[in-house]
Amino acid sequence: MHLQVCEWKDPEELRVLMDLELGDHGESHQQLLQRVRDIARYSVKTNHPRFFNQLFAGVDYHSLTGRFLTEALNTSQYTYEVAPVFVLMEDVVLRKLRSLVGWSEGDGIFCPGGSVSNMYAMNVARYWAFPQVKTQGLWTVPRLAVFTSQESHYSMKKSAAFLGIGTENVYHVKVDESGRMIPEDLEAKIVHAKSQGAVPFFVNATAGTTVQGAFDPLDRIADISERNGIWMHVDAAWGGSVVFSKKHKHLIAGMERANSCTWNPHKMLMAGLQCSVFLMRDTTNLLMHCHCANATYLFQQDKFYDMSLDTGDKSIQCGRKVDCLKLWLMWKAIGAQGLANRVDIAFASTRYFVEELKKREGFQVVSEPQFVNVCFWFIPPSLRGKENSPDYQEKLAKVAPVIKERMVKKGSMMVGYQPLDGRVNFFRMVILSPQLNHSDLDFFLDEVERLGNDL
Amino acid sequence: MHLQVCEWKDPEELRVLMDLELGDHGESHQQLLQRVRDIARYSVKTNHPRFFNQLFAGVDYHSLTGRFLTEALNTSQYTYEVAPVFVLMEDVVLRKLRSLVGWSEGDGIFCPGGSVSNMYAMNVARYWAFPQVKTQGLWTVPRLAVFTSQESHYSMKKSAAFLGIGTENVYHVKVDESGRMIPEDLEAKIVHAKSQGAVPFFVNATAGTTVQGAFDPLDRIADISERNGIWMHVDAAWGGSVVFSKKHKHLIAGMERANSCTWNPHKMLMAGLQCSVFLMRDTTNLLMHCHCANATYLFQQDKFYDMSLDTGDKSIQCGRKVDCLKLWLMWKAIGAQGLANRVDIAFASTRYFVEELKKREGFQVVSEPQFVNVCFWFIPPSLRGKENSPDYQEKLAKVAPVIKERMVKKGSMMVGYQPLDGRVNFFRMVILSPQLNHSDLDFFLDEVERLGNDL
Repeated sequence: MHLQVCEWKDPEELRVLMDLELGDHGESHQQLLQRVRDIARYSVKTNHPRFFNQLFAGVDYHSLTGRFLTEALNTSQYTYEVAPVFVLMEDVVLRKLRSLVGWSEGDGIFCPGGSVSNMYAMNVARYWAFPQVKTQGLWTVPRLAVFTSQESHYSMKKSAAFLGIGTENVYHVKVDESGRMIPEDLEAKIVHAKSQGAVPFFVNATAGTTVQGAFDPLDRIADISERNGIWMHVDAAWGGSVVFSKKHKHLIAGMERANSCTWNPHKMLMAGLQCSVFLMRDTTNLLMHCHCANATYLFQQDKFYDMSLDTGDKSIQCGRKVDCLKLWLMWKAIGAQGLANRVDIAFASTRYFVEELKKREGFQVVSEPQFVNVCFWFIPPSLRGKENSPDYQEKLAKVAPVIKERMVKKGSMMVGYQPLDGRVNFFRMVILSPQLNHSDLDFFLDEVERLGNDL
Repeated sequence: MHLQVCEWKDPEELRVLMDLELGDHGESHQQLLQRVRDIARYSVKTNHPRFFNQLFAGVDYHSLTGRFLTEALNTSQYTYEVAPVFVLMEDVVLRKLRSLVGWSEGDGIFCPGGSVSNMYAMNVARYWAFPQVKTQGLWTVPRLAVFTSQESHYSMKKSAAFLGIGTENVYHVKVDESGRMIPEDLEAKIVHAKSQGAVPFFVNATAGTTVQGAFDPLDRIADISERNGIWMHVDAAWGGSVVFSKKHKHLIAGMERANSCTWNPHKMLMAGLQCSVFLMRDTTNLLMHCHCANATYLFQQDKFYDMSLDTGDKSIQCGRKVDCLKLWLMWKAIGAQGLANRVDIAFASTRYFVEELKKREGFQVVSEPQFVNVCFWFIPPSLRGKENSPDYQEKLAKVAPVIKERMVKKGSMMVGYQPLDGRVNFFRMVILSPQLNHSDLDFFLDEVERLGNDL
């Protein structure tokens, strides 16, 4: 008998159980220990082998040690004087990650998540094209245009909104069946934007889309970006880790031609939330020029050591959490070889899962998986063979939410679902933890049947 | 004999000592344990009683327990389904903090640091004034103007740059000797901005400036903001915690009239990096409207529970670290009363320190402390009585950096210094940890003399 992935409680019930309200007086140690137990009990076990709900899962104990040490040392990653080890360590980790991408030089920074890393990319690209925006704002430049695929991450829209560019100035490029950007449409959209008087300045390609796990054709997108003089960014938050694998790194061929990329080791590498890097090929200190404010209380220019080590002014944050140690310690523990195995095992488990899924009646893949996302419908017995009936789609759309509710309330497993571009609700299975075995995946398929066969 | 605050190594030496490079193969447990020891050894002990270098210090073991638990549970704060306990807990903590500010209703969110919280404020204020910026960008609205004091935090400039508003559209309002905004100049600057065709939309008042610890006159700034229909934000990242203290909360009188505030419990309350909140008085769901992107893979609208609990779309992040637990657990452990004591003790220690400082020859305060920042010059014997010699300022400017270098290399303590607005380099002592005793403060003054008497 497995521990449950979650012990579901309705919000109203959980509020009462947890007694969350804060008062004037402290509590006994015994009460506090009970609270700690309750928090663990009612929280979702994201390291459970049957947690497939997000693009993170599992646990790496070396990383966890690094995270505990980070918390105990409680410092901020802005100057060498308060974070000597971590300033040097961040530099080494970023350099190593860049070298895997194929950049012998460059720059970068750890950010609080992939969305913020993507925002950095958009802002640096804007500064590169129009440095006066930093001082004078957007009023002094023409309307700017961003290009990204229809299935790219929603942080592109959030970035455009936050940076004052506007969501309507994000041009969504069409994708093929599997979710890959169609380069011809990128080219057409650039022409279209120009014809409307906008200035294309930023192309975002995705390496591993959120839902289908699609890899945009980076080389072709690089050709177009170069020809048009547009900054090319690759959102490889999810897919970047394939670079470790000799067998699968072809998926991101061409990434080395981009100007920047986002990559989240907290996803496939299991470094723990949050561990996201923004990497650049630039060697002109663009990141610093774009973001610096030269605060004299922090970045004094008469210090006794090499002040280029005070890297905090590259950030839009002031205090910045140390996110490099957990990845560094994990890497020291298992080596690049161990990380490569992790990626290869995830691909192999995915292949097993897809083969098993296809053997079963009622399971239908939405598209052929390119990565470790497996998007599929479960068609319950009552709907099989009725694909042409008028209410089929409507009925099918209701299947995933019901199965999801049942699995969560039972606590047996967790997986996400969503509609996408005219396709009704389907499950998105994500297979990444090396701690998974075949029986976990068999269980998953059996359980979907158990929970959905009466629908 | 105290443990050193830091064991200083030059970057070149530390690089060699730490063997930071990452390779293909893993290491033995013994090697990894030695690495963990080395990381701790060469990192700055920010919880050391003689660490006065930043606006954080000390350690709270209940908070640390919360932080370890956060890491072990490794989830993201976006939906109730993956973070049921933390979604409810964040709501309770935010509500409690708002009620202390004086807001019975409102909204808010935990952010990765005060700078990002301030960016949220500026973006929400912009959306409130001109919602079309979210979709159409800044081109469709007039030039916007931000107002903040000369001694406010540099994140105002970073925010204006990042949001596409531009640093030159930040109008810096004059301050008095102690660093408090002069309301008459705010009024004049607003008139001036309007005369230049700009639209004032955001006034930032500071409760606890970074260097001098000044509190802007919030009531008078609220009068001006209200009269002009401008969003008023209070950057109380540093000073917000005085709200716990009956004796000192008068410093932020008027904060309840603001539209929003930033407050970092990781500073004075010692909640651990990072713990920063953005709080709003708004009851119209402005935060959600401003930031939402309605990603269908995460924020499905056919879930079986109250989907208003999926608060992640209020954020500009996607994955968001759980920052509420450490504060919540610490609060449960010592109560609001314990937090109030912490604030009162810091003020009392500061008073002791200032009195002792004034008794000594060669110490001169830059301004009378209002908070727990004590800004002072150490005038070495060779410069005493020579205030009128032509190179006095130039020589005095070099004193603090030399003493700082000596203390860091010795490892006896750490304190920051900076020039400010025509005043040459002075020390900024920050007294916040309740673990400090008088002998630590006496030691500090003795040590400054020891390190600087030959200068």
